[in-house]
Amino acid sequence: MTMPKSIVSKIEDALRRRCGVRPGHGILVAISGGPDSTFLCHALREIAHRWPLRLAAAHFHHGIRGPAADRDAAFAATLARDLGLPFFSGRADAPAHARRHGLSLEEAARELRLGFLREAAAGAGADRIALGHTADDQAEEVLLRLLRGSALAGLSGIPWRRGPFVRPLLGTRKAEILAELERRRLPWCRDETNSDPRHLRNRVRSRLLPLLREHFNPAVEATLNRTAALLADDEAVLEDLARAAFSRLENDAPAPSGGPIRLRVADLLAEAPAIRRRVVRLALEAAGAPLRRLVAAHLLGVEALLARNRDGRIDLPGGVRAERRDDRLVLHRGEVPAAS
Amino acid sequence: MTMPKSIVSKIEDALRRRCGVRPGHGILVAISGGPDSTFLCHALREIAHRWPLRLAAAHFHHGIRGPAADRDAAFAATLARDLGLPFFSGRADAPAHARRHGLSLEEAARELRLGFLREAAAGAGADRIALGHTADDQAEEVLLRLLRGSALAGLSGIPWRRGPFVRPLLGTRKAEILAELERRRLPWCRDETNSDPRHLRNRVRSRLLPLLREHFNPAVEATLNRTAALLADDEAVLEDLARAAFSRLENDAPAPSGGPIRLRVADLLAEAPAIRRRVVRLALEAAGAPLRRLVAAHLLGVEALLARNRDGRIDLPGGVRAERRDDRLVLHRGEVPAAS
Repeated sequence: MTMPKSIVSKIEDALRRRCGVRPGHGILVAISGGPDSTFLCHALREIAHRWPLRLAAAHFHHGIRGPAADRDAAFAATLARDLGLPFFSGRADAPAHARRHGLSLEEAARELRLGFLREAAAGAGADRIALGHTADDQAEEVLLRLLRGSALAGLSGIPWRRGPFVRPLLGTRKAEILAELERRRLPWCRDETNSDPRHLRNRVRSRLLPLLREHFNPAVEATLNRTAALLADDEAVLEDLARAAFSRLENDAPAPSGGPIRLRVADLLAEAPAIRRRVVRLALEAAGAPLRRLVAAHLLGVEALLARNRDGRIDLPGGVRAERRDDRLVLHRGEVPAAS
Repeated sequence: MTMPKSIVSKIEDALRRRCGVRPGHGILVAISGGPDSTFLCHALREIAHRWPLRLAAAHFHHGIRGPAADRDAAFAATLARDLGLPFFSGRADAPAHARRHGLSLEEAARELRLGFLREAAAGAGADRIALGHTADDQAEEVLLRLLRGSALAGLSGIPWRRGPFVRPLLGTRKAEILAELERRRLPWCRDETNSDPRHLRNRVRSRLLPLLREHFNPAVEATLNRTAALLADDEAVLEDLARAAFSRLENDAPAPSGGPIRLRVADLLAEAPAIRRRVVRLALEAAGAPLRRLVAAHLLGVEALLARNRDGRIDLPGGVRAERRDDRLVLHRGEVPAAS
């Protein structure tokens, strides 16, 4: 079963040039059962005939969606077996995890899924974990983040590679994938939650993108993908500058290991606003604030502390507190004795 | 006739902190006759009672829209007279200018209008030219640019200040302005072209923004304005880096005055992609390419010249040609002898 050169060689190219995959690498493919990850699995299987790549597959059951989720899990296991791939399956109760940790169901499911995939990759001896996001997912993501109020890092969309996670389909349109699955008569599972209009992402897909395509730009997905790629290059430069500035500022006011982060207010104010905000974000991350829960309002709150000329404090996600004390910005979890 | 403190003091604040206006400055207000610039004129008049500001007003007739445009011109003249402001009026034939220079009607009108305003400002001894763009115009602009495929500089929207041009209403919603005009019973002119759905901007206003507000984010305009402000800070840092890199690269390979720009390919390739693209854009501008007509495809065309290891050339807007010759990128208008 050979796919046309164009689509598989595009994915092969992305693996090498975008995802940092090298001959001999092990790749764990996350199969949801939907068309994208199913196709990714077939395509990687075909590529592995040409390169030496070690493949394994994994499926995670979130403990939601009832019988449909059970069907997806069985489908993923069968697919892996038919392709002769080692298979890892995991299961958790995402609703309970969400309740326990005060997360949204989506956040809880994501946290559990990524944790499982990292463990499965370790078990499989895999260097990379391949996810099935497409160019359409990227366009939706950019619009979602724009509408939620992301800054540059968010508008850069999802990356081809972050840590062990790679997305070899990010340059491929969903329509190409569906056409290819159809042509090859390869089965996959439909996920009914993908059309539930209560989900913001589904409204972007079913209402917003069609309107934009019809009335504003027939190639809107391609345009958004190109913009995201350019913005990711921009963010990379600013992020590097901010990391260098953060190291410099931390060295000027070193924190005992595990102690609060202390940065001189004058040093922060000497940075350009774009760098200062990123240094604050890095410092908050170092102090233990969960980055995914930080929004622009939190960073602007810290800016306000810096801008006014007196002591004050604000509370941030993850139990992190930002305090201004004299000439320092102090970031810590829980209470810190005033004299420390 | 005193307006409530909130709206006028917000504009006063923007004048000082965002637009760099100082006591004693002269400001030329561009009046189209529409609600925004009419309100701006009244607000500045009120502020000028408190600060020492010298005000003048100007109106430009584009030679389009027939009697409605004549009505607007008469309205602007009356408004200026009623407020006791020196008044400058100008008129041109934008359609003829567009035909003569191969511009769109919108581009031609803009070029003529800005040229007239600069001359009028010189005549009035004005330090700044105030334009009536609002927070709603900014939100529309960000969406328009996103849909047209702008990169970071474009997504930063329109600035509070660029050269002599300032936009003191950029933090004010159009609804506030209309409510205030209504409350004060101040007259203004309606522009029918603002509802013509053939204009992309009008479709953004009448179709896209209402959909986004209703189904995605009730405060979408505020969100887009905040994002644009953050992105403008990001762009400022990258633009500074690119200007420094361009100077460095130009010094390494100086061009005779008026001669072609020559940059070493190896030097360009040593820069991060985000900086390299901006250096190319600065170099194209220095070579005479009109920035407003450069799109991402042009910059990516130059990137492709740099990426492949052989000579080649591409033609760009404004009669500028980019050539790769051995180890140099050469940018020039018209022909350059091979030996030069």
